[in-house]
Amino acid sequence: RCHRPVVEMLDLPFLPSCVFLGGLGLLCIAFVGTWCQHWRGGFSLDGSARTFNWHPVLMVTGMVVLYGAAALIYRLPPARRGPKLPWKVVHSALALAAFVLAVLGLAAVFRFHNAHGTPNMYSLHSWLGLVTVLLFSCQWVAGFSTFLLPWAPTWLRAFYKPIHVFFGATVLMLSVASCVSGINEKLFFSLKNGTAEYKLLPAEAVFANTLGLLILLFGVLVLGALARPSWKRPDADSSDSHQ
Amino acid sequence: RCHRPVVEMLDLPFLPSCVFLGGLGLLCIAFVGTWCQHWRGGFSLDGSARTFNWHPVLMVTGMVVLYGAAALIYRLPPARRGPKLPWKVVHSALALAAFVLAVLGLAAVFRFHNAHGTPNMYSLHSWLGLVTVLLFSCQWVAGFSTFLLPWAPTWLRAFYKPIHVFFGATVLMLSVASCVSGINEKLFFSLKNGTAEYKLLPAEAVFANTLGLLILLFGVLVLGALARPSWKRPDADSSDSHQ
Repeated sequence: RCHRPVVEMLDLPFLPSCVFLGGLGLLCIAFVGTWCQHWRGGFSLDGSARTFNWHPVLMVTGMVVLYGAAALIYRLPPARRGPKLPWKVVHSALALAAFVLAVLGLAAVFRFHNAHGTPNMYSLHSWLGLVTVLLFSCQWVAGFSTFLLPWAPTWLRAFYKPIHVFFGATVLMLSVASCVSGINEKLFFSLKNGTAEYKLLPAEAVFANTLGLLILLFGVLVLGALARPSWKRPDADSSDSHQ
Repeated sequence: RCHRPVVEMLDLPFLPSCVFLGGLGLLCIAFVGTWCQHWRGGFSLDGSARTFNWHPVLMVTGMVVLYGAAALIYRLPPARRGPKLPWKVVHSALALAAFVLAVLGLAAVFRFHNAHGTPNMYSLHSWLGLVTVLLFSCQWVAGFSTFLLPWAPTWLRAFYKPIHVFFGATVLMLSVASCVSGINEKLFFSLKNGTAEYKLLPAEAVFANTLGLLILLFGVLVLGALARPSWKRPDADSSDSHQ
């Protein structure tokens, strides 16, 4: 078709996009760390609000940035060629690291609540966050059993693969929605009845709101990168053979 | 391939899925309406909290349910065959209706804030919501100018179409994240210092948390339906010809 060259000319090159996404992910981690260190008093393990501060840092690092890296690993040019098994191991290991950080992040908020006699699991943020981590754990176990262990038959791999891809994108969407609702909630908790009420938009509020938008941008761009046909492995639509 | 029949046998039929999605969308509207009517005092135009109540109802109805319907219109079997122009008009009209409801929903919250001397646009929820509606307005104007007005050249339509599809899904994700953060925020505002504190999880909190999860489920399923290759128009990947 005559317009194909125009469309291809404007196609995004993978590597600069990948560097940009990596930088954006690191920026999200830097922002959430700076927020908790500079405005929320830093980190500790004593059950105080400084224990809570591990929660946003670990969730953003695990469920958004490491999770996004795990999702995108098959789009790296070396992963698009040759045997898939080493990249499956990297994908699985990054996802497991993300899951471990998420569990530590949940432990931080439960410890903080229990030390203060605050009930756990009442807000929509907490319901959504727990659904997200539970879905992620099912996704990891099902993915590991089906694609890395050698026993699953080819038809099962072919059947489960689009489901794994769909729930992979879903968990990232739910993670991002959890982060946004959590940052919003934390700002209403922290910025009130003082000289720096949230509604007066002090510097902390501008900074943490910006963090929320950066996380959303990262999530949307990762999902966009996953959906680009030209960045997929050539065998992406065919069956997943045994290694 | 030998496993193809197994995969196809388990393929979701479109019409029951569509009826389920439509029912889920109506359930979201029923839930948000019941929440505002039964627990939040109902509706009015006098600038009170009952004016605010239009905000969640209009945003969920417009930016989630009508928007989702507009996005899925090309997946209806009659829309997958024959001329595309009538379906473009329906898509555009549903999106415009969603946009009008969103603007009325924003007017409701601005009127409520102004009547109470509350600042506008300070929370992450408000930033995200405004970004979503602004992106949606750009998307509508660009889509109308490129695909419905007759002047855009074929190469421009082919170039803009994947961008339109990507931002279409993005706006739905942002809408859903806005709804979740807004419901969470409203419950912290409304349920405090009384006998029905949010953290004691009264019936209203369970009901509105469930609403949040239903909206998320609707958004995820609409995005999943959009991504299914077998439900797309046969010409989905080719250029968009002039009507």
